[in-house]
Amino acid sequence: MTAQHRIAPRSGAGFRLAKGETLVVVDPMGEQVADLLVFNADDIDEVLSSGRSFDYAERIYLTTGDKLYSNRSNVMLDIVSDSVGRHDFLLTPCSYDTFRICYENEPPHRGCFGNLAAALEPYGVLPDRIPSAFNCFMNVPVDGETGRFKVLPPISKAGDHIAFRAAMDLVVGLTACSAKDSNGGSFKPIEYRIEPAA
Amino acid sequence: MTAQHRIAPRSGAGFRLAKGETLVVVDPMGEQVADLLVFNADDIDEVLSSGRSFDYAERIYLTTGDKLYSNRSNVMLDIVSDSVGRHDFLLTPCSYDTFRICYENEPPHRGCFGNLAAALEPYGVLPDRIPSAFNCFMNVPVDGETGRFKVLPPISKAGDHIAFRAAMDLVVGLTACSAKDSNGGSFKPIEYRIEPAA
Repeated sequence: MTAQHRIAPRSGAGFRLAKGETLVVVDPMGEQVADLLVFNADDIDEVLSSGRSFDYAERIYLTTGDKLYSNRSNVMLDIVSDSVGRHDFLLTPCSYDTFRICYENEPPHRGCFGNLAAALEPYGVLPDRIPSAFNCFMNVPVDGETGRFKVLPPISKAGDHIAFRAAMDLVVGLTACSAKDSNGGSFKPIEYRIEPAA
Repeated sequence: MTAQHRIAPRSGAGFRLAKGETLVVVDPMGEQVADLLVFNADDIDEVLSSGRSFDYAERIYLTTGDKLYSNRSNVMLDIVSDSVGRHDFLLTPCSYDTFRICYENEPPHRGCFGNLAAALEPYGVLPDRIPSAFNCFMNVPVDGETGRFKVLPPISKAGDHIAFRAAMDLVVGLTACSAKDSNGGSFKPIEYRIEPAA
């Protein structure tokens, strides 16, 4: 049985994912976002790209059957299973500045950005190289007329998951998101497991 | 009178823009996209960020009064004038791979990505550092229900413009876009001028 790891509330983890392995991201309690970033393990200048992924999918909401591309237009991850169907790929990880600007009455937190930077630092990833993440379970409906969006509580329930198969050897950063509005007003853990190549 | 520069069809330009100066991007013939990227002239690791800009605007369609932020959450550009009101900030510059994947019956072109890489190379910008651009005049309506988007002809008419005031000293990359679908089926020039600080 594959071990399931837990990421504590408002923290993050960094780890390797080999080509062919599947990363299963689980929301154990429901309504909790997990920011996901991946880098080519052999060349960390190759990184997940929201813009390339949108372009090739012709859609901004991605789910089972969709591929996540790098800045070099290579497939990094295939979404192979998704019990939720609503994730965000528009927004950057919450950061000290997000809290300063958007949550001005609360003490700033280093956020997913700071947690990703710390988790990825051992792999040589610099903070300036952290782009928009794939925000698992984040619910950001967009009004197509005005372009306005809202950050609503995730629609994920306890035990929901999304699974990604690696198309290359990867370095992964994954968080339990730190921003109140993104997580229905409370901070909960995220779990993940790595399933071997079939 | 400020000189107006012309960017030939399917090409690009790189130049400096000082803090306080205003860059006016003009569509001289109508229905032509211009991809815009900016980097902090004193530290090119600071770059335009679609995700940060969306986050702080709470909108994906940006126009007069909106600010374009960097990956470090600093304001890089203020949109001070806009006669069109419809631009795209979702998609990455078209590239050799875009043509290979999306225009498979046409000879691949290096696209805005290749043109930006060439124009920015003298300033020390590496191709891997080119993120999603602010695509002036690009018309990408999104269906808020499904997340599907279309790339439609720009709604810009001959002589339309959008103007950006620099909030820091910048290196700018600007193109006359090379992708047929983005430009109503033909390739036209783009013009720009730099107006001094008030």
